Amino acid sequence: MTGYLRDADEIYRESFATIRAEADLRSLPAGIARVAVRMIHACGMVDLTADIGCSAGVAAAARSALVGGAPVLCDTEMVAAGVIRRRLPAGNAVICTLSDPRVPEIARRAGTTRSAAAVELWQDHLGGAVVVVGNAPTALYRLLELVEGGAPRPAAVIGVPVGFVGAAESKEALVSSPSGLEYLVVRGRRGGSAIAAAAVNALALDAD
Amino acid sequence: MTGYLRDADEIYRESFATIRAEADLRSLPAGIARVAVRMIHACGMVDLTADIGCSAGVAAAARSALVGGAPVLCDTEMVAAGVIRRRLPAGNAVICTLSDPRVPEIARRAGTTRSAAAVELWQDHLGGAVVVVGNAPTALYRLLELVEGGAPRPAAVIGVPVGFVGAAESKEALVSSPSGLEYLVVRGRRGGSAIAAAAVNALALDAD
Repeated sequence: MTGYLRDADEIYRESFATIRAEADLRSLPAGIARVAVRMIHACGMVDLTADIGCSAGVAAAARSALVGGAPVLCDTEMVAAGVIRRRLPAGNAVICTLSDPRVPEIARRAGTTRSAAAVELWQDHLGGAVVVVGNAPTALYRLLELVEGGAPRPAAVIGVPVGFVGAAESKEALVSSPSGLEYLVVRGRRGGSAIAAAAVNALALDAD
Repeated sequence: MTGYLRDADEIYRESFATIRAEADLRSLPAGIARVAVRMIHACGMVDLTADIGCSAGVAAAARSALVGGAPVLCDTEMVAAGVIRRRLPAGNAVICTLSDPRVPEIARRAGTTRSAAAVELWQDHLGGAVVVVGNAPTALYRLLELVEGGAPRPAAVIGVPVGFVGAAESKEALVSSPSGLEYLVVRGRRGGSAIAAAAVNALALDAD
């Protein structure tokens, strides 16, 4: 097996060149095209661009928050594991509360999922944070309820929960939320922790 | 925001029912259909079935290895983070060597990626293990080189690296390897850590 590419830099270069050649990036705001390239890189699908939606200021808001030291709040350990720590510009905290021992009891009392219950524990960190939901629609819904109810506002929300029950709907709720949060979403059923982490990692860079 | 489903069991039930209604699972071996359902659940795409390939014995081999206490060898921390520990039948070790301090030097000396270098450090654990490659084609290629060169044989290989350079090719190399390893793949560019972890989590269950 001698014929495969082993040079990491060259693999990245060739991957990104293929994505830029095949993906329709023109419809995206300039600051998001390079983020979309990395989201596509994480899932292998160039047609992801058709489902990417964002507010005009999300890239600048996320980058500025990260430079200012904002924490990254993640709905799952997989998303947190995918955030490249050395790329964060201010040694930012990466927080996932899903395994907090208080979560099962909060979920039971509130009659909701553990993912949504874990969001309750974000409240002290929420103001100015970068929120990343890569898995659970209920986490995104609960975040919107909290913010619309007066909780501190995150600087940006990467909302890419995946799946068949509530994923598409929760992302539309973020897009149309009266809270006017800065957002980046993948509409429809697609999403997931790899796309979510790739988006954070791209937003953390000043430029490629 | 009162209209969304909050009951985790009901969310799973409804998700799996949608997948079973929409996905063409008939073409898959019986033991793999339920694994495919969970892989689809992790990526939101029912057409994943068209790209799923496997050896006839992979589900039984992986399950039997896990019951026997085999370690789960993961190419990335994201895959490792996605493996649900409480579901593993024998308190199995989940090992990712990518952050081992020896990896950069091994990669430099061998002129390869860190992902491939990390596979060198699997060798003591490889015999009878369940290997999960969710990200790096070079890790899968290196594994095949080692096994074809006489290294201990894993019990099963979940090969779902993602992307544009070598992903599709490395998976075809696994499928057609003279080593005759038991395998589960997603052909083409699609794959990733979420699909990989979902496959392990499904294989760890005796039945749904």
